[in-house]
Amino acid sequence: MRKLGVIGIGNVGVTVAYTVVSQGIADELVMIDTNEKKVLAEKLDFEDAMPRMPYHTEIKIQDYAALKDADVVITAFGDITASVRTGNRFAELEINSKNAAEVGQKLKEAGFKGVLINISNPCDAITTMLQKATGLPKNRVFGTGTFLDTARMQHVVGDYLKQDSRNIDGYVLGEHGNSQFNAWSTVRANNKPITEILTAAEIAELDSKPSEGAWTVASGKGYTSYAIATCGVRLAQAVMSNAKLFAPASVYVDSVGTYIGYPAIIGANGVEDVVELQLSPEELTKLNESANYIKDHVAQLEK
Amino acid sequence: MRKLGVIGIGNVGVTVAYTVVSQGIADELVMIDTNEKKVLAEKLDFEDAMPRMPYHTEIKIQDYAALKDADVVITAFGDITASVRTGNRFAELEINSKNAAEVGQKLKEAGFKGVLINISNPCDAITTMLQKATGLPKNRVFGTGTFLDTARMQHVVGDYLKQDSRNIDGYVLGEHGNSQFNAWSTVRANNKPITEILTAAEIAELDSKPSEGAWTVASGKGYTSYAIATCGVRLAQAVMSNAKLFAPASVYVDSVGTYIGYPAIIGANGVEDVVELQLSPEELTKLNESANYIKDHVAQLEK
Amino acid sequence: MRKLGVIGIGNVGVTVAYTVVSQGIADELVMIDTNEKKVLAEKLDFEDAMPRMPYHTEIKIQDYAALKDADVVITAFGDITASVRTGNRFAELEINSKNAAEVGQKLKEAGFKGVLINISNPCDAITTMLQKATGLPKNRVFGTGTFLDTARMQHVVGDYLKQDSRNIDGYVLGEHGNSQFNAWSTVRANNKPITEILTAAEIAELDSKPSEGAWTVASGKGYTSYAIATCGVRLAQAVMSNAKLFAPASVYVDSVGTYIGYPAIIGANGVEDVVELQLSPEELTKLNESANYIKDHVAQLEK
Amino acid sequence: MRKLGVIGIGNVGVTVAYTVVSQGIADELVMIDTNEKKVLAEKLDFEDAMPRMPYHTEIKIQDYAALKDADVVITAFGDITASVRTGNRFAELEINSKNAAEVGQKLKEAGFKGVLINISNPCDAITTMLQKATGLPKNRVFGTGTFLDTARMQHVVGDYLKQDSRNIDGYVLGEHGNSQFNAWSTVRANNKPITEILTAAEIAELDSKPSEGAWTVASGKGYTSYAIATCGVRLAQAVMSNAKLFAPASVYVDSVGTYIGYPAIIGANGVEDVVELQLSPEELTKLNESANYIKDHVAQLEK
Repeated sequence: MRKLGVIGIGNVGVTVAYTVVSQGIADELVMIDTNEKKVLAEKLDFEDAMPRMPYHTEIKIQDYAALKDADVVITAFGDITASVRTGNRFAELEINSKNAAEVGQKLKEAGFKGVLINISNPCDAITTMLQKATGLPKNRVFGTGTFLDTARMQHVVGDYLKQDSRNIDGYVLGEHGNSQFNAWSTVRANNKPITEILTAAEIAELDSKPSEGAWTVASGKGYTSYAIATCGVRLAQAVMSNAKLFAPASVYVDSVGTYIGYPAIIGANGVEDVVELQLSPEELTKLNESANYIKDHVAQLEK
Repeated sequence: MRKLGVIGIGNVGVTVAYTVVSQGIADELVMIDTNEKKVLAEKLDFEDAMPRMPYHTEIKIQDYAALKDADVVITAFGDITASVRTGNRFAELEINSKNAAEVGQKLKEAGFKGVLINISNPCDAITTMLQKATGLPKNRVFGTGTFLDTARMQHVVGDYLKQDSRNIDGYVLGEHGNSQFNAWSTVRANNKPITEILTAAEIAELDSKPSEGAWTVASGKGYTSYAIATCGVRLAQAVMSNAKLFAPASVYVDSVGTYIGYPAIIGANGVEDVVELQLSPEELTKLNESANYIKDHVAQLEK
Repeated sequence: MRKLGVIGIGNVGVTVAYTVVSQGIADELVMIDTNEKKVLAEKLDFEDAMPRMPYHTEIKIQDYAALKDADVVITAFGDITASVRTGNRFAELEINSKNAAEVGQKLKEAGFKGVLINISNPCDAITTMLQKATGLPKNRVFGTGTFLDTARMQHVVGDYLKQDSRNIDGYVLGEHGNSQFNAWSTVRANNKPITEILTAAEIAELDSKPSEGAWTVASGKGYTSYAIATCGVRLAQAVMSNAKLFAPASVYVDSVGTYIGYPAIIGANGVEDVVELQLSPEELTKLNESANYIKDHVAQLEK
Repeated sequence: MRKLGVIGIGNVGVTVAYTVVSQGIADELVMIDTNEKKVLAEKLDFEDAMPRMPYHTEIKIQDYAALKDADVVITAFGDITASVRTGNRFAELEINSKNAAEVGQKLKEAGFKGVLINISNPCDAITTMLQKATGLPKNRVFGTGTFLDTARMQHVVGDYLKQDSRNIDGYVLGEHGNSQFNAWSTVRANNKPITEILTAAEIAELDSKPSEGAWTVASGKGYTSYAIATCGVRLAQAVMSNAKLFAPASVYVDSVGTYIGYPAIIGANGVEDVVELQLSPEELTKLNESANYIKDHVAQLEK
């Protein structure tokens, strides 16, 4: 049976949980948060909804021990409003690095042996810390990373071409943050290279739209929740069903020596494979810069 | 194709919208709110999620004219935090009665001819006003009413008996508010009358639990959202698929002369039928008192 | 993760499998049949469908050893056309009792420890044999029994009252076969006793309709598949999600000393509880007669 | 509300219908077949299943007039076993061309104005005839064509690379029949050209596998059903939700003057756009040959 944990029941974590409960994605759901009244309220709200839903989910709260045999744990702690206020996901780094150490330690003590998917920001750095703190193999810990940013790029390009976003392939790579970049050499619309469909000027104009869209959402509602939660759930489903899903995510890439947004194959063992891309020289430079940016921040914290 | 409108994109309305988008429940979704930045943010957040979802939904915002041929409109305007602060759903009455007049007028002007399902509180009074303001037939306007409270009762009784809440039948009747009551004569667990399973003392103890649970949720998270949104969506699905769903809701009951929580059959025409219950004399008294309470408030507003 | 086996990939078994694959109900599916070419064909047909589906399911065939850690196994072996030709589900008894012994033995050897749900006919007798052959505890083996016949009764009564079948409660009890009976004392429509809604003459006329409907299906298409497969899948979901589903099924009832269609609570342990009914004296007589009928057949086979 | 018709309730048509009913994809389903007993049996089997399903679907049978306001009609008439016996989908041409004329005429008389999706074989020729017989615009009639064959190619390539079939992009083009071909220049795995991943010898070996797989299914079970029905339903959903789905299907391609398997955009108007491919010279030759093959057969029938 499918067992999923969510740690951090803020706007994102609770949307992950609702998606799981409302679509019957897991049989057991464990929710943990520092705000005990909030997590109890969400549990009761879900249980009040259940007589009107077709699925049954057992919900437990505040119980790390129950995560011992969980298939997947999603971490979504932290206060994104700090990032929104400052326009920088690293604004959350200090507090979340403490959270990561604590949560990782508790998961270790609970004997958690499943796959950990981190959403908390700055995603790549916190994923790094969670891997260390849990002591899990690198492939069993990864972050949503640019899986979300890629969706935003697909959305922006699809809108521009009046196409469904699902008809757009390709990736946003690098840090889930300011140093991320659209790897336009990988982007295709209806199976054609975007560089053959759009002019360089058009592409240049689209380049900043995905992150602008993100901040339109964040400033308009104070946070972002539905897209990031959907990304987290899809990755969790890929693990639970061993889907071998090909997706960019924050995975450990040996060649750059850090967790970073890069395409990988997601299955029962977490990151089953990292898929080497043939990037343009400019893109490779951006990837390395982004990797250095992440590594610097991690190094500072480890001092 | 299925077209659904949601008016009021607060915590409840946006959860209705997310449920619709994430489960492919409608083909077109129209979202309207007084906070233009918020509603745009939610639209973009949904669209950023869509490349990771199996369904496609066209989303429009702030467009009453687009509701002309909508199958269902769900109203979820108002500020529930006022109710939470005061512990009384009537705290929202004044502001929401103005909202109801305005929204109803705009729906009328748009030529909306579908079914209107109201969530806004105080649910029964606002449903009354929306019916008048829209000029729609009484059967084409109804409220979620005690469909939610009944779910909470099922949850409480199920927990007490260590049974799934779906194994509990029966209703909470009356106002969706303080004068509602558990119609214990209708409650059955695993097809047995609850009065044969539990002692009078046990039933008395359970009697206040559903509304206590509601306030635990509301105080723990500042509002309630998942259960009420799920109730609204289920009713909308019943209309769109002409399901003839038997459910308590805020429907116009001739015998008491008001909209009030009472069992009905929900289908393509909205309220297809009101199902007469054989209540105990005490329950009948409570129903009449609750009806009077609703009618008094409506009368005050109409002065 | 959820793992489900289906043994017997005829019209019913394959519909169970398709329902599981198309709705993402299990992560691993093991299909076993004596017709190796057929089961391979169905596997490939599902896998050809998968790029067009939102879910991923790992499919294995002809591998009893893979059932060692399955959560649920559904048995759907046998040739229903024999029953259809003769109008008697016991026509399949002899061949299926051999199947049951063989399948049960193989499950035992595989070390299967999950819950076995039997669909093969005659359902109650074959369920009895499967329990013995597997050596599993009585609660971990049960049959679909009158869960299907009850759905047909709900359908018939709902149609007559122009109500949705889901608004009808109550049970068909006894053998899943000719000695089954509608326990009208338990039947309710929109929460009212059917005996208060319909005359005795009307009820008498409806009495034979559910089984007539079954034979209209069986003779019109040569077998029945969608309703029975749906029933099997719902019960499997109830086990996998520990739903505590209240449902009539072929469960071991101590008071009559046999597996027989009777209401029970279905959860992670299979039959979590048998729910005692207060039947009318006539109904009790019918139940005992039906129990004797099942026991006689089982006894004959065991000679 | 969503209304869907299925004409031809054989193994494929009934699987389309079951998928629609079991997943709540349409609100009204109209099923039509020459075998009246069969179509009634399937209707009753679905209705017997409905109390165990979360969705409600109104089912009508044998009623062309009810298709007047249908959003989509799927045609799945004909006897695929003739094709299976002879290994050639054109074996069904004569009988199905009569069916097409008759069904098209009846749809015209019913005033059907929606989108027609044809599954019946030979798919491209029958789609041509249905377009003429219904008098619908060319964009409102299309066939499943190589949408299925493409799925099979994805399956085969995915298996070979130990990847999920959804990670494989590209198309099978041409006739849904013997003259179809894998357009390897369009095939990509995890976003890399297949020609860079596999050797020419490997590709040559894989080339015949998709159609071999199809015949393994057809010979193993006597027909194929799940993959083709799933393809039909996905296309119908794309129409009903105006998804702008990018997919190969049997669409009218001006440059070759016939319906043929080719990538298109599927939305509310049926074929919203045909997407021009940059094929290799060899592929272009194959496409033209396949087009001529289809046109010859259509021409013979029209004599």
